[in-house]
Amino acid sequence: MTPLIRVVLVGTRNPLNIGAAARALSNFGFTDLVLVEPYDASWREAKSAMGGKGLLDQARVVTTVQEAVADCSLVVGTASVGHRLLKLPVRRLEYGARLIRQHAGPVALLFGSEKTGLSNDDLSLCHWLMRIPTRGEHESMNLGQAVAVCAYELVRDAKAVRAKPLEARRVSAAELDLIEARLHAILEASGYTQPKTAGTTRLKVRRLLRRMDLREADAELWLGMLRQIAWRVGCSPEC
Amino acid sequence: MTPLIRVVLVGTRNPLNIGAAARALSNFGFTDLVLVEPYDASWREAKSAMGGKGLLDQARVVTTVQEAVADCSLVVGTASVGHRLLKLPVRRLEYGARLIRQHAGPVALLFGSEKTGLSNDDLSLCHWLMRIPTRGEHESMNLGQAVAVCAYELVRDAKAVRAKPLEARRVSAAELDLIEARLHAILEASGYTQPKTAGTTRLKVRRLLRRMDLREADAELWLGMLRQIAWRVGCSPEC
Repeated sequence: MTPLIRVVLVGTRNPLNIGAAARALSNFGFTDLVLVEPYDASWREAKSAMGGKGLLDQARVVTTVQEAVADCSLVVGTASVGHRLLKLPVRRLEYGARLIRQHAGPVALLFGSEKTGLSNDDLSLCHWLMRIPTRGEHESMNLGQAVAVCAYELVRDAKAVRAKPLEARRVSAAELDLIEARLHAILEASGYTQPKTAGTTRLKVRRLLRRMDLREADAELWLGMLRQIAWRVGCSPEC
Repeated sequence: MTPLIRVVLVGTRNPLNIGAAARALSNFGFTDLVLVEPYDASWREAKSAMGGKGLLDQARVVTTVQEAVADCSLVVGTASVGHRLLKLPVRRLEYGARLIRQHAGPVALLFGSEKTGLSNDDLSLCHWLMRIPTRGEHESMNLGQAVAVCAYELVRDAKAVRAKPLEARRVSAAELDLIEARLHAILEASGYTQPKTAGTTRLKVRRLLRRMDLREADAELWLGMLRQIAWRVGCSPEC
């Protein structure tokens, strides 16, 4: 069972980023957003929130990180490599998200301000840090995008990697035979098939048709097109 | 081996979104960005790109999707549930990203405009569609965030979920014994330990210390604090 996961934005400066974060959280089904001293008092007007507005209306605003995380038994900070100096364990998002999902009790996930990130004080309240695996040369992510990526990883379904979704129905062998017959008639009538290699051509075409991995609906389309071409090249009416 | 993955933004209206997409792509190490008829000619001025500017400078601008994907052998559109009507297979991001990584040849990943998404014409050029698993009630993502989430999933390391990162060194049994001895001396000197239950107390404290899963560096800190407290409560000098 996934625990309650609260997202805490600390000292966010740009109200557009608050709106973007709220929107991404709403996209992925998160409902608990807390803002610690948002820099711009006009954050509620953030236009970019759109569908995230509901979440933004419910968001709590508090003045300290302690207040924001008081009822959480796990506090995770989001970090860049620079934070490794802080002697807190830094976990990659893939692994960290798994630990969060398995945690018994409410979890707070902290994001620092756009300019300075989380302060040393904020970080000292964290049990560990989580790092999005960006490349070293360009590590710093936009805040709204970082929230979106973390939210996605937290709801990501590992089983969905393997479970092949329902595919469109594939054509039956009988229908393939019908297409094959019609195509052969056309190829003969149009002079493509040579008497000497007719057997080989037939086999080549048969394999070609199987490789196409045709859907049922597309088979209909092919049959219709071939019927018309057959008529045009003067095939016998039964083909 | 991961194939070349090209990101194609089709008819993007807001230059800030182009900048945000470029930044996220740069964060995750993508280098091939193509813009099809960006709506606003001033997109190059997009300020929010920041670190993404290098990628934005290299981006090609073309007038048709065909041109953008000409050399790709797999074209994947990003889709919302509404697109299911189109009879193209829709694959969840987790599974679709795996197919893309395993594809033999260059892949194009298409993102439509903010307002209308990909047109029917654009979609007819796609082999299949990929869907970010947002919740049904609030499905539509911000463009920059959608690009960030897809880019992340494409470079995500499944092995990192299991591979525990290097942890700080844990305290040795000998050091734990030292802490235990010092704490016991303090507990006795301060009157916490009762003669009748001294044996039980000793065992309780021993287990407590093991559950703390102390790091080596933190053991030093504890020893220092306990030394000072021991001195204050009047323990014998050797403790």
